[in-house]
Amino acid sequence: MTSTGQYLREALDGPWKEVREQCREYLPADIFASDPTLDTKAARARALEQMHALVETGYAESGFRQENGGTGDVGAAVAGFEMLAYADLSLTVKAGVQWGLFGGAVENLGTKRHHDKYIRPLINLDLLGCFAMTESGHGSDVQQLETTATYDPGTQEFVINSPTPSSRKDYIGGAAEHATIAAVFAQLITEGESHGVHCVVIPIRDENGGDPPGVTTSDCGHKGGLGGVDNGRIMFDNVRIPRENLLNRYAEVEEDGTYRSEIETDSRRFFTTLGTLVRGRISVGGAAAAAARVALSIATRYALKRRQFRPAKDEPENVLLDYLAHQRRLLPLIAKSYALGFAQNDLVRKMHLIQTGQNTDPEAQRALEKRAAGLKVAQTWHATRAIQESREACGGAGYLSENRLVTLKADTDVFTTFEGDNTVLTQLVAKELLTSYADEVRDYDATDWIRFAATMAGDVVRERSGVRQMIQTLFDRGDESVEEGDLSKRAVQLQLFADREDYLVRTAVQRLRNGAKNGDAFKAFNNAQDHILKAGASHIDRLILEEFIDAIELIQDEEARKIAETLCDLYVFTELEADRDWFIMHRFMSVERAKAVRRGVNELCEALRPHALTLVEGLGVPESMLRASMLNDANVYERE
Amino acid sequence: MTSTGQYLREALDGPWKEVREQCREYLPADIFASDPTLDTKAARARALEQMHALVETGYAESGFRQENGGTGDVGAAVAGFEMLAYADLSLTVKAGVQWGLFGGAVENLGTKRHHDKYIRPLINLDLLGCFAMTESGHGSDVQQLETTATYDPGTQEFVINSPTPSSRKDYIGGAAEHATIAAVFAQLITEGESHGVHCVVIPIRDENGGDPPGVTTSDCGHKGGLGGVDNGRIMFDNVRIPRENLLNRYAEVEEDGTYRSEIETDSRRFFTTLGTLVRGRISVGGAAAAAARVALSIATRYALKRRQFRPAKDEPENVLLDYLAHQRRLLPLIAKSYALGFAQNDLVRKMHLIQTGQNTDPEAQRALEKRAAGLKVAQTWHATRAIQESREACGGAGYLSENRLVTLKADTDVFTTFEGDNTVLTQLVAKELLTSYADEVRDYDATDWIRFAATMAGDVVRERSGVRQMIQTLFDRGDESVEEGDLSKRAVQLQLFADREDYLVRTAVQRLRNGAKNGDAFKAFNNAQDHILKAGASHIDRLILEEFIDAIELIQDEEARKIAETLCDLYVFTELEADRDWFIMHRFMSVERAKAVRRGVNELCEALRPHALTLVEGLGVPESMLRASMLNDANVYERE
Repeated sequence: MTSTGQYLREALDGPWKEVREQCREYLPADIFASDPTLDTKAARARALEQMHALVETGYAESGFRQENGGTGDVGAAVAGFEMLAYADLSLTVKAGVQWGLFGGAVENLGTKRHHDKYIRPLINLDLLGCFAMTESGHGSDVQQLETTATYDPGTQEFVINSPTPSSRKDYIGGAAEHATIAAVFAQLITEGESHGVHCVVIPIRDENGGDPPGVTTSDCGHKGGLGGVDNGRIMFDNVRIPRENLLNRYAEVEEDGTYRSEIETDSRRFFTTLGTLVRGRISVGGAAAAAARVALSIATRYALKRRQFRPAKDEPENVLLDYLAHQRRLLPLIAKSYALGFAQNDLVRKMHLIQTGQNTDPEAQRALEKRAAGLKVAQTWHATRAIQESREACGGAGYLSENRLVTLKADTDVFTTFEGDNTVLTQLVAKELLTSYADEVRDYDATDWIRFAATMAGDVVRERSGVRQMIQTLFDRGDESVEEGDLSKRAVQLQLFADREDYLVRTAVQRLRNGAKNGDAFKAFNNAQDHILKAGASHIDRLILEEFIDAIELIQDEEARKIAETLCDLYVFTELEADRDWFIMHRFMSVERAKAVRRGVNELCEALRPHALTLVEGLGVPESMLRASMLNDANVYERE
Repeated sequence: MTSTGQYLREALDGPWKEVREQCREYLPADIFASDPTLDTKAARARALEQMHALVETGYAESGFRQENGGTGDVGAAVAGFEMLAYADLSLTVKAGVQWGLFGGAVENLGTKRHHDKYIRPLINLDLLGCFAMTESGHGSDVQQLETTATYDPGTQEFVINSPTPSSRKDYIGGAAEHATIAAVFAQLITEGESHGVHCVVIPIRDENGGDPPGVTTSDCGHKGGLGGVDNGRIMFDNVRIPRENLLNRYAEVEEDGTYRSEIETDSRRFFTTLGTLVRGRISVGGAAAAAARVALSIATRYALKRRQFRPAKDEPENVLLDYLAHQRRLLPLIAKSYALGFAQNDLVRKMHLIQTGQNTDPEAQRALEKRAAGLKVAQTWHATRAIQESREACGGAGYLSENRLVTLKADTDVFTTFEGDNTVLTQLVAKELLTSYADEVRDYDATDWIRFAATMAGDVVRERSGVRQMIQTLFDRGDESVEEGDLSKRAVQLQLFADREDYLVRTAVQRLRNGAKNGDAFKAFNNAQDHILKAGASHIDRLILEEFIDAIELIQDEEARKIAETLCDLYVFTELEADRDWFIMHRFMSVERAKAVRRGVNELCEALRPHALTLVEGLGVPESMLRASMLNDANVYERE
């Protein structure tokens, strides 16, 4: 590896670089490699085998607090999780279900009695769990789950029921085969009153692996990818569990059925519950971005070796990456991968500080949730696009499973859906922006929301809490007007991203307020939906740019920093090019400037072309983990 | 089905609607349904079984001339092929290889001796063939294939050789298992002289299914999709075949080794050879578009039933298609599906007239090839996008194989690559446009091309041959300037599409001419590559719009025609929105007009929303062929 590549890799490895280095030692082992040729049965067995191999490495402990038998290094847990995506995404998701979702629910929603009983066994895989939130009828709107947990003071038990077909738990990883216990989200009812969604722990397998009385599990069957993950369904028919199985960190039901919670409203309790699970969303985004890095590493290395068409008679054929069109396919996606990697590192750091008690600012948790939602969207859609483009850029070879790209695509495809549908999450980001985190709006329907909008201030001020000093200084230095400024200056770039966001947020608020004056609230909301979604997306874009700029400052090596600066420019120019029409139409960019943006992308591609291999080295996927046979196959390259 | 849906379906069914109706009778049978759960071995066996079932229907005969035992209805063959994509894409590709590629090579490149010997058996599947053009080292630049066929007058045989690792035949459908014979493309050498690429027929299996002497077949293994297609590799080590195995329609080698051809240059002969195979490219585009129609039908029907989030307390949850964001996801893709369907019908009609000898205009064949390339690109990229969007729009349910979307995505993914990589084909379209079909340019490298550009006229006139009278009349009526005109007027829409194309072609020529004056020819070409590709794409867009307008005129039913008009508007507005920056920057659209485009898309979505089911009916996929379990599963919908 070049030393510049090494410097870039270290920068992108971020605060938990040691963890990533450790993973690079043990994850190239054959046991962790994905095998898309296995049938469903064999794939599931293999994923479980891989899980046990992972336990041997001590992988799972960082995710749990010391008093529960872990090491309590939250950031390390997420960084390690991202690295799994270099190896096998079935293993990644399987690990995420067991230790992240199920383990996370037990640790964060349960109390000591649950920790003592479950956590050590679940770390060691003596206990296999699943996370049963989604139902057939409700995936995005989980406040409306239909499963009920009704308290019976006579026996001091909860009675769990699936009252309708649509209340069936669905898509639950582990439920089809391996999990013996489930963290089940259900409407808690006691003394005839419902208190909203709570989580209870329910055995879903008997000693022989069959369904316990009242429990009916079934199999979701073959999927688009993630063959090693045994997604299943669960129905409950008056299943009785002890009162103690309620994960009672935020609410308790007394023996006599009295309901008690320190959090006053059902809504607030629900969102507090969801908030503790934010690590799952952050992990999924990170894993998707990691998968994109694998795909881009494969496609770029291929493009540096594969030749096609001669530029002139008697000259050797060009390598694919010599073509501008091919550079434009891959290099901007590499630039965005760097951008997202830096943003993810910062997000993980923020989460780590909050979840280890080092940041107790009450606003911080909610800001984290918004940012986690936004980056999950950006990273998973990026992965879908980058992997697709990588596959196409490798032609027929890219379609063979031995070259891995199709498996990456198939396995990550659902990442835009699970842990929050991307469109719904983008809307969530926008609502948080538009309402400045107003507490009451979180479970508003469209009608409530339009009513609320009527009361909103006309001028929502952009949240600047995330902007560290260096960024602020850049802003302050930006004395030239954007129209006149040099697009390669960071201050000008930042201003453009910030201006777009401010404008979209301000005008979205205006639209909603105007809409509020008219009759049909849903229609008013709906008519503005594309506007609102764009406001959310533009906010995410700004955050990503800020983190990119921030991260570059930390690169000591001059050559590496210079390349990172060029990458940042390419990221900015590509984003501006994609939204050029908006910038022109809203007078933030002249036509001449806009034309320069396209030329700029081409020039930046040309400037980065000689560094392509270095850029790939910096992405941080070890060559031993690429596992694409074409990269070492003389047949696909020219004879000498 | 609504009567309006029926009228739309008939319009989209086009000139070969009877064939499509026949297919709708027999293709819903279980034997033709895709089964993504099968392992490679079982999937291949099933595909072969399906092929035999297809023979029973008489499916294959339309593709071959009457004197060879077929019915000679070329258009019917392609329309029927498209319909297979509703059922199973492995079967589709398998059929395409056998009857389209292999059968097509034998019929179109061979002569009577080959027809008599092979065609009846290959129609009946007594003979299974494959089409061995692509090599590991050359996929796009097939003129540079390395396999050699050297004539030995001593034995009157050709000696077939794979002289290098990269000359290995690769990705060949049928070569791994089922095919016993191959149409092999190789450099023909006789009397010490090479005459370029020719096609010879070579047995690749002995009676026991093993490799004959000198032939080494191997398996490409697991792929991203199309599990039923047994793609393989072939190497030849001095394999001897009789002289008569040369498919000798365009060239003959006499017994003594004398080479004889009516076509003077190697290049011209090569492109004539490729030109006869244009049906494959047309078929692939049509099948991709058909797969997109299946996906959009599933996703839209789901969006009309699946509910999530209430608009207000005590109101029922909205169906997904009530949301503007969801309308914007699906309806423009439906509009584009109509656009492409009409364009494909016209393309097939043009091909039919040429290949049945009803159109003998010497220019027509080359115009057909350009149009086939362009529509293949448009349709296959549309399929990739539409199926991906459909999957995401169905959330977790969309990821289950039982709901089919992931299989459609995986199976069609390689359509953007095979029968011509989409980027390479777009460039081919552009070159044809820029050089006005100059004969000599077809095998030019970048350097030749830049030299040629220096001689080009500064003003390339847009080819209008495809524009029928109605379109011309519209143009002529377009007396208002575009800037002032109403964007909902067809004349204005056409003018915008045509102006964009003219401008891009003219300026591309200028750029190349300027580049020709400087030193590095490849660099000059490469710097303009994105410009050239955009010129190609804009040409394709114009053709598609013209065919849409043309097709609407033929719809008799008033309600159906009204809906088609709105769909056409949505197609136009969506395309304009996607390229708004270009139109503004080149002063073809004012900022105010551009803003109206976005509003227009929203309004057109709203206008079409009530007709969503009708639109889906019109797409023409019978409900019995959707085979997505969620469409009939109460669990995923709300309880009443």
